[in-house]
Amino acid sequence: MTDLELKSTSTMIMKPEVKIPRATKSIQVGNVKIGGPEFAVIAGPCSIESRSQFAETSMAVKSAGACLLRGGIWKMRTDVKAFQGLGSEAFQFIKETIDDSGLGLVSEVTDPRQIEMLDDFVVMYQVGARNMFNYALLKELGQTKKPVLLKRSFSALIEEWLKAANYIISGGNENVILCERGIRTFETKTRYTFDLNAVIWAKQNSHLPVIVDPSHAVGIRDMVAPVAYAAAAVGADGIIVEVHPRPAEALSDGQQSLTIQDFKTMMHTIERILEATDRSLLKA
Amino acid sequence: MTDLELKSTSTMIMKPEVKIPRATKSIQVGNVKIGGPEFAVIAGPCSIESRSQFAETSMAVKSAGACLLRGGIWKMRTDVKAFQGLGSEAFQFIKETIDDSGLGLVSEVTDPRQIEMLDDFVVMYQVGARNMFNYALLKELGQTKKPVLLKRSFSALIEEWLKAANYIISGGNENVILCERGIRTFETKTRYTFDLNAVIWAKQNSHLPVIVDPSHAVGIRDMVAPVAYAAAAVGADGIIVEVHPRPAEALSDGQQSLTIQDFKTMMHTIERILEATDRSLLKA
Amino acid sequence: MTDLELKSTSTMIMKPEVKIPRATKSIQVGNVKIGGPEFAVIAGPCSIESRSQFAETSMAVKSAGACLLRGGIWKMRTDVKAFQGLGSEAFQFIKETIDDSGLGLVSEVTDPRQIEMLDDFVVMYQVGARNMFNYALLKELGQTKKPVLLKRSFSALIEEWLKAANYIISGGNENVILCERGIRTFETKTRYTFDLNAVIWAKQNSHLPVIVDPSHAVGIRDMVAPVAYAAAAVGADGIIVEVHPRPAEALSDGQQSLTIQDFKTMMHTIERILEATDRSLLKA
Amino acid sequence: MTDLELKSTSTMIMKPEVKIPRATKSIQVGNVKIGGPEFAVIAGPCSIESRSQFAETSMAVKSAGACLLRGGIWKMRTDVKAFQGLGSEAFQFIKETIDDSGLGLVSEVTDPRQIEMLDDFVVMYQVGARNMFNYALLKELGQTKKPVLLKRSFSALIEEWLKAANYIISGGNENVILCERGIRTFETKTRYTFDLNAVIWAKQNSHLPVIVDPSHAVGIRDMVAPVAYAAAAVGADGIIVEVHPRPAEALSDGQQSLTIQDFKTMMHTIERILEATDRSLLKA
Repeated sequence: MTDLELKSTSTMIMKPEVKIPRATKSIQVGNVKIGGPEFAVIAGPCSIESRSQFAETSMAVKSAGACLLRGGIWKMRTDVKAFQGLGSEAFQFIKETIDDSGLGLVSEVTDPRQIEMLDDFVVMYQVGARNMFNYALLKELGQTKKPVLLKRSFSALIEEWLKAANYIISGGNENVILCERGIRTFETKTRYTFDLNAVIWAKQNSHLPVIVDPSHAVGIRDMVAPVAYAAAAVGADGIIVEVHPRPAEALSDGQQSLTIQDFKTMMHTIERILEATDRSLLKA
Repeated sequence: MTDLELKSTSTMIMKPEVKIPRATKSIQVGNVKIGGPEFAVIAGPCSIESRSQFAETSMAVKSAGACLLRGGIWKMRTDVKAFQGLGSEAFQFIKETIDDSGLGLVSEVTDPRQIEMLDDFVVMYQVGARNMFNYALLKELGQTKKPVLLKRSFSALIEEWLKAANYIISGGNENVILCERGIRTFETKTRYTFDLNAVIWAKQNSHLPVIVDPSHAVGIRDMVAPVAYAAAAVGADGIIVEVHPRPAEALSDGQQSLTIQDFKTMMHTIERILEATDRSLLKA
Repeated sequence: MTDLELKSTSTMIMKPEVKIPRATKSIQVGNVKIGGPEFAVIAGPCSIESRSQFAETSMAVKSAGACLLRGGIWKMRTDVKAFQGLGSEAFQFIKETIDDSGLGLVSEVTDPRQIEMLDDFVVMYQVGARNMFNYALLKELGQTKKPVLLKRSFSALIEEWLKAANYIISGGNENVILCERGIRTFETKTRYTFDLNAVIWAKQNSHLPVIVDPSHAVGIRDMVAPVAYAAAAVGADGIIVEVHPRPAEALSDGQQSLTIQDFKTMMHTIERILEATDRSLLKA
Repeated sequence: MTDLELKSTSTMIMKPEVKIPRATKSIQVGNVKIGGPEFAVIAGPCSIESRSQFAETSMAVKSAGACLLRGGIWKMRTDVKAFQGLGSEAFQFIKETIDDSGLGLVSEVTDPRQIEMLDDFVVMYQVGARNMFNYALLKELGQTKKPVLLKRSFSALIEEWLKAANYIISGGNENVILCERGIRTFETKTRYTFDLNAVIWAKQNSHLPVIVDPSHAVGIRDMVAPVAYAAAAVGADGIIVEVHPRPAEALSDGQQSLTIQDFKTMMHTIERILEATDRSLLKA
């Protein structure tokens, strides 16, 4: 029941003193279930740039153990002159690539009017950090049935992040997965400051699954894997990570994209850390 | 020419070393021109709550020297259960009140699909802090002819704020007015931290008018007027300020709304500070 | 009575809802009284670099209206290889220069063991932002009789700043003047973010005088004067500002030091803004 | 050679693009060596409160696998009226307790004049976060031979933290261990924001050992262990953690102190995570 659920979410936010972690709600995303004991790895390029780039990346991350694909179609770029994504022109080859891979696609929606267009081929809508406060968009996603990956704004209080989730839940869509992706602080050596505390807090005080985006949280390729290890060690429900066959040629976020080899190496260590805490990778 | 203008905006952002303040572009907003030597005061309630509340406030701020009205129709509230604004039901009495007052209305647009609805009776669209990164909305506003008041996100770098303006300008609408309204820092005594430096920086390094929202920038009624005095003293192009006849009964932002008497007192001191720097109030 | 005073300070911190500004305590600093209706301008070089540099600056700022001198003898530098100040070798010419100028000197103490050495020739000890949390130093200053200028750490909550003042006051020295000099935020265009709200809050809620350091608060020469204008407009008790005859040759903080001409121009406008609020410059 | 070492430290700071982690320098601290492949756990009370409290905690953490003790003698408290530590009166029983436990003590020095007093019975001096910018203290510690645990100020840039280490190193004491303990951000649910990125960055770009203080980094008892797991997973050189037999009765930091049972449970999981990355606990 939506309304009861809401009351309980709201109670949870108001009672940080609750000590025992709430059982996390499992959410069906395409063929997999996020929020159970297993750890989900969602991987793929920052932007979908071409059929070959997307196909190559998809096959590689699948064979290394990812259970879902990521890939941006419309991009939120600070600079209006920067690459804004392929948009609807890429729909055809995206659908074909997904079908070939057998994995579900998670992709960002940046405008309420894109929801219907994407409905055909994504298994989860992603709300980017810059749109976490876009309540018009969140309300619209509350009307859909598909799960929503809600990234924390880089300036959102944990409480605002959970209350943003309520905008979707109160519309009738209870399938929200939270994603911490780094906050903005005074530090400049890294792109953002990964807020591990927020991941732990949200796991202990809400019933929603919580995943980590190590790519944006740190912004430097060689530091991405350690952030992912921390996510596994503290009991997060998964990660969403950027992988590119040739990061130097990427049209966006090349500096933080893992190579395919990096990704494989990382997956191996993640598996060992999960074992140490009696967990395992979520299989596609 | 849009394209030349754009190049110049971009050059400006990249050359913070330029020392001589650029001449500010004057922008026609209804019957008044913001960005010239005079100081614009935009005043009114946070939310339009009823015909009588809006009418009473409008008349009072007009008689005390405001040149434009503010008033929210759709509100961006952290909590989905909080008052979300009257929405389109209030259109009829809003139009009548504006006509009676003879002042133009500035009001926030929170969804691209509201632009057309508002076009009939606002003289300037406002983009709120939470939507500064909503590029889909900014692009749509680039297609309109009316001026846009672009509030800085509470977490935006000055550079991102100016680049957000470019989203509107590059669409063909060069009439952007910047508004600093406080940023999020570690300090908790005040609601936000007013970034006076950003006002000075933007005035010295861009050609766009820059105004201040002292109400949100500090969030405490008794501190609003001093922030407005600082805005006048440093050469800002104006302020946008919240006024309510009975703040204790306000449906939003009561704690930071000036009473009508507070507003009158503040206007008197603003005028004296403007005189000290050879400026004056912009008249309706 | 120290103890009563302390209780009152503590009450004040706990009751931000008090609305009527408390009367500010006037503090005798050498020949002048800070905290009364007049506005104090403390000016001089960041570091005292040589007899001629200090003498030239002192004479110039005096003739332009400063009532006290500033000048660093030991410097707090991030880099251990950077100029660390002339130290005790400069004592002789510093004393002579002060005597010639007829103005009192305010200088920073960075180690409890310097207090006695400085006692001979400063009229006020300065605690720099990096030492605001150095409670061993504050306690020691509580044992002296001279006034203390307590800069806010760039990361201190307003409450911690006032509580740091209590470390001095509770030792028996009630003569503390607060100084806001910019806080560290995510913004990078300016060196720090000047927190005007903190100035207003501290004026409204404490009985201690509050001054502003516009030089550090913004860190860019052309932006220093506007910050000083804001300080005057909101009712601060004064400013402490860096002036250098040839900023390009300064051994520290050259980028934010005013030239002597800049300083004169700024003083003229400050006087006009003070007049607009029925105040005037504090004369030496 | 101190000077060469310094140059190399400085080069490292200036070249964040270096990708291969530098071999970490091992530092002898009492009987153990921090910075090698093993993971050091330093544990004990926030403040040493009494002979029995310190003895009980010491024995318990030793038997659970800690290799060094922590315990504050002089405390840095925001409020001058709060418990300031037992000071030198406790020296006698502290020495006896350490001798009984067979573990070395790490304790904070808050005033240059305490160094000599502590020299007799600590194996490592600790510089607290509030004193990281106290360069007078750092210079004095550069003259000692004992290792120094340098906590990052909650507002220090990573670069400033490493440059603070240079103040000690350039004095001739190369035995500096870095400690990340949370930074101050806009988030308020947790006491500070643990900056995991800084740990990873410092490990990849400096040759100094890096440990984590999970107690201060999060400030909430139930969240301390997960932060420690993350420290182990990313390859930190150890942790320093607060443990109290009865946290509810603690004179400082009770809300973030682990019980003895919490500590034992945490140590078990840390060991498993270390194994997963081919490491192990450092034994006393």
